[in-house]
Amino acid sequence: MGWMADESGLEKCAANYVPLTPLSHLRRAAQVFKHRTAVVYGTHSATYGEYYDRVSCLASGLVALGVKPGDVVATLIPNVTAQIESSFGVPACGAVLNTINTRLDVDTLAYIFDHGEAKVALVDTQVLAPVEAAFAQMDGTAPLLVECPDPGAGYPATGRHVTYDDVLAKGSADFEWIMPQDEWESLSLNYTSGTTGRPKGVVYHHRGAYLMTMGTVVSWRMTLHPVFMAIVPLFHCNGWNHTWMMPVLGGTVVGCRDVSAKAIYDSIADNGVTHFGGAPIVLNLIVNADAADKRVFDHTVEVFTAGAPPAPATLAAISTMGFNITQVYGLTETYGHVTECIWQDGWEDLSQDDRAAMQARQGVAMPMMERVNVVNPDNSQTTMDGKTQGEIVMQGNSVMKGYLKNPAATEEAFEGGHFHSGDLAIQHADGYIQIADRKKDIIISGGENISSVEVEGCLMAHPSVSLCAVVAKPDEKWGEVPCAFIELLDGKTATQDDIIAFARERLAGFKCPKAVVFQELPKTSTGKIQKFELREKAKTL
Amino acid sequence: MGWMADESGLEKCAANYVPLTPLSHLRRAAQVFKHRTAVVYGTHSATYGEYYDRVSCLASGLVALGVKPGDVVATLIPNVTAQIESSFGVPACGAVLNTINTRLDVDTLAYIFDHGEAKVALVDTQVLAPVEAAFAQMDGTAPLLVECPDPGAGYPATGRHVTYDDVLAKGSADFEWIMPQDEWESLSLNYTSGTTGRPKGVVYHHRGAYLMTMGTVVSWRMTLHPVFMAIVPLFHCNGWNHTWMMPVLGGTVVGCRDVSAKAIYDSIADNGVTHFGGAPIVLNLIVNADAADKRVFDHTVEVFTAGAPPAPATLAAISTMGFNITQVYGLTETYGHVTECIWQDGWEDLSQDDRAAMQARQGVAMPMMERVNVVNPDNSQTTMDGKTQGEIVMQGNSVMKGYLKNPAATEEAFEGGHFHSGDLAIQHADGYIQIADRKKDIIISGGENISSVEVEGCLMAHPSVSLCAVVAKPDEKWGEVPCAFIELLDGKTATQDDIIAFARERLAGFKCPKAVVFQELPKTSTGKIQKFELREKAKTL
Repeated sequence: MGWMADESGLEKCAANYVPLTPLSHLRRAAQVFKHRTAVVYGTHSATYGEYYDRVSCLASGLVALGVKPGDVVATLIPNVTAQIESSFGVPACGAVLNTINTRLDVDTLAYIFDHGEAKVALVDTQVLAPVEAAFAQMDGTAPLLVECPDPGAGYPATGRHVTYDDVLAKGSADFEWIMPQDEWESLSLNYTSGTTGRPKGVVYHHRGAYLMTMGTVVSWRMTLHPVFMAIVPLFHCNGWNHTWMMPVLGGTVVGCRDVSAKAIYDSIADNGVTHFGGAPIVLNLIVNADAADKRVFDHTVEVFTAGAPPAPATLAAISTMGFNITQVYGLTETYGHVTECIWQDGWEDLSQDDRAAMQARQGVAMPMMERVNVVNPDNSQTTMDGKTQGEIVMQGNSVMKGYLKNPAATEEAFEGGHFHSGDLAIQHADGYIQIADRKKDIIISGGENISSVEVEGCLMAHPSVSLCAVVAKPDEKWGEVPCAFIELLDGKTATQDDIIAFARERLAGFKCPKAVVFQELPKTSTGKIQKFELREKAKTL
Repeated sequence: MGWMADESGLEKCAANYVPLTPLSHLRRAAQVFKHRTAVVYGTHSATYGEYYDRVSCLASGLVALGVKPGDVVATLIPNVTAQIESSFGVPACGAVLNTINTRLDVDTLAYIFDHGEAKVALVDTQVLAPVEAAFAQMDGTAPLLVECPDPGAGYPATGRHVTYDDVLAKGSADFEWIMPQDEWESLSLNYTSGTTGRPKGVVYHHRGAYLMTMGTVVSWRMTLHPVFMAIVPLFHCNGWNHTWMMPVLGGTVVGCRDVSAKAIYDSIADNGVTHFGGAPIVLNLIVNADAADKRVFDHTVEVFTAGAPPAPATLAAISTMGFNITQVYGLTETYGHVTECIWQDGWEDLSQDDRAAMQARQGVAMPMMERVNVVNPDNSQTTMDGKTQGEIVMQGNSVMKGYLKNPAATEEAFEGGHFHSGDLAIQHADGYIQIADRKKDIIISGGENISSVEVEGCLMAHPSVSLCAVVAKPDEKWGEVPCAFIELLDGKTATQDDIIAFARERLAGFKCPKAVVFQELPKTSTGKIQKFELREKAKTL
């Protein structure tokens, strides 16, 4: 420990210690980048000076509504202006930002409102109905509802509630922000998708979000003034913290209500978008876009993809279209991405397929993380041989405080001094992690572990397959066998036998699907395939 | 304050809280950038894997010599391999790195060794003599001397001392680093140049250095794999923390024993140097280089300059030569630079002179700083009118812990909750700071304040002037009058009358020098002009 023999007078004070918070980024940007464009959505455009003023109005408007430091303020809004401004406006009054998935069912919404105890909810006009229904169903006191209309998108105010603009009008651009006095104070509350049981409330601290932004600048190779399109919903890990990052770079956030290939291409061509993140399904949208929706652009667009391992075939296809894909990996519990598949010298000399296979790995710890590794059940490091499976665990400053009002689950997640991801992976000799499967998605057939991800990666290379998911189907003889659910590309066809034959040429026999179902796959709002639904269906086949 | 109503189980633990330290950068780089070149000096070249191993050997070799956590380890070495490795090797054993200016006099060296109480001193063979003399002169126990020879530069080992290689040989590459348990632990000890009285020992913490590196990545617009030439001595604010920054980017540090135009041009052309920092005197070296020393290169070299405001004429000249200059500003007490003259839209449309004048300003707070402003004597913000003078003060995480064993000086420096720089400045309407002068360098003539920097900037535009310094000369009538000391360009001439006439055309009469002396200017090892010597001389004129 580096304490000197005499440290008298060397304590922290106001001059040399400022709690880390992403709020500092916007305060600085309002001075340094005052006249640069900060936010664009539809016909709305704001400079950093204007953005700061609007955020200050929101913060003080919330105070006028009775919001106190430590109170929870919920938002149910797509990635439009009000949601972007809430990223700063809610914490700027000392409140905790609870971004909620806009596509949740009434029952789950009611659970979250009861559990999170939000005092105010900012709600997009499009999703008023389920929220109002959830309020009616709550056990506790419902939040005050502030309606966020979006007339430009066809959602004018209903007149039933106080509106977002009303709140801003009550506020003041001169409001002095309530900054954290301790960087461990709570910044936001994000509920997990809850594929197993009730969603858990993941709490972020200011320190973690600040460090996440600084590390992401490095990993995404960003310099000043990127133009970032907000495709990942801000209710998913606060959009991987990218909205909090933009002010440090004087960058522009481009809002996005509905994700489509056309919207993405238009924003690249018209707004000069340089960076966006998205699940592999977004990459598929781009690759399979109609010719009429594609636009010409002459810069490289940097894309972070996560949420599921993208198929090598998708990576190979998109890399020739002006997009540079970096695979990243993380969880709600880690503020979003904490590993990156960082490019290594020599990969440019590989065949396109081999290169895509390298890029399909989840990679290594990002700069703000101390350790991301694969461990055995006794928490010891696995052999880095590209074969031995273990669980991915993390240590670092972009790991959540814990689960709200659930110390038992928090303790379990942090067992042994690192965060247990629940994801099974191998680690290659170069230290790169590659996800084998979610613990619960592994298929055990005749005592052999089958990685559903490996089978999916194989099937995605089939020329007719757009998207697929492989789950366990109960089997009397083998215990479980792989069952494939497949979305075909427009105008393409394939039969169960085609698919199985294709797999047999590429995989060990026991890994090949024994049943194939062609259908649209159920997905969460963040593009994750809902395998639990497919597992239920597989049982009935 | 953002504490939620129920925060049970949400405390810090090993999984979610890791003390910030630049040591983490190198640990990660040893994995992620294992095979990339980390350090180059002369014929020495090391990958990150090798660099990590050598640093581990140094750390454990120091432990073998009896160094304990919290002990001070001094270095007196130019920017060569041993000095670069010490940046990590000393803190990796929990010790505090005390980089000492290699050009100090024996008396000051003895003072620093007594005050800092270094247990071990790593000393370059070239500077053994004054160090040995200082040891003999000390009141306390002298450090153990480890000699760092540099045979390639003509400094083979003398045989009188244990050598750096001996220490590494005693160590082990498998040594487990002693990481800080608290990010406020002391990382390094840097003595001020001591132009007024004894040098003061500035103590840095791990947190500040970590945040300095992350903020600098943004400010210097760096992406992965820069090639950085270490021109600023590592004994000056630990080289502005740039050595600590390189591993997070997988960049290369190019060592440099002697700074010359030839060495800089060769390194740009041969090593592909992309970034370096240096005092304005380094810019002058480049601008005035012999044609034979200049080399052709086809990339832009990014240069941070600080230490004194560069003359607009120098900035205008160098910007056409393949160098992009960013003026930064800071002090030993702030880990080096904490403001940057960030480029604004529209500057490209200014005339070259006007643009250079914008770039000659010290600018705005860098990302890791919370506040850098100019205040009145009562600590209130000055009017940002580009005229009102006040003192530059700072708040942020890249401000020192304080002065070692000098709580009174620490308290004075932090008076009012911010660090007092002692520099006088104006603040423009856009928030940009421009240094008027050091408090003690201001010239008061007939009750009027004269900024020596303003007069110097004027004289630097004279076609015969290479470098100049203006100080106060006592005057019976006016109290003080400006006196100019000037270095002429090779082959150029000028008389006192020429210079005064040149100034009269551009400055108010009372600001024009009343005496002009042509001589080589006395400089510190970091290129700062030693005005106190010139003031003494001016008294005798």
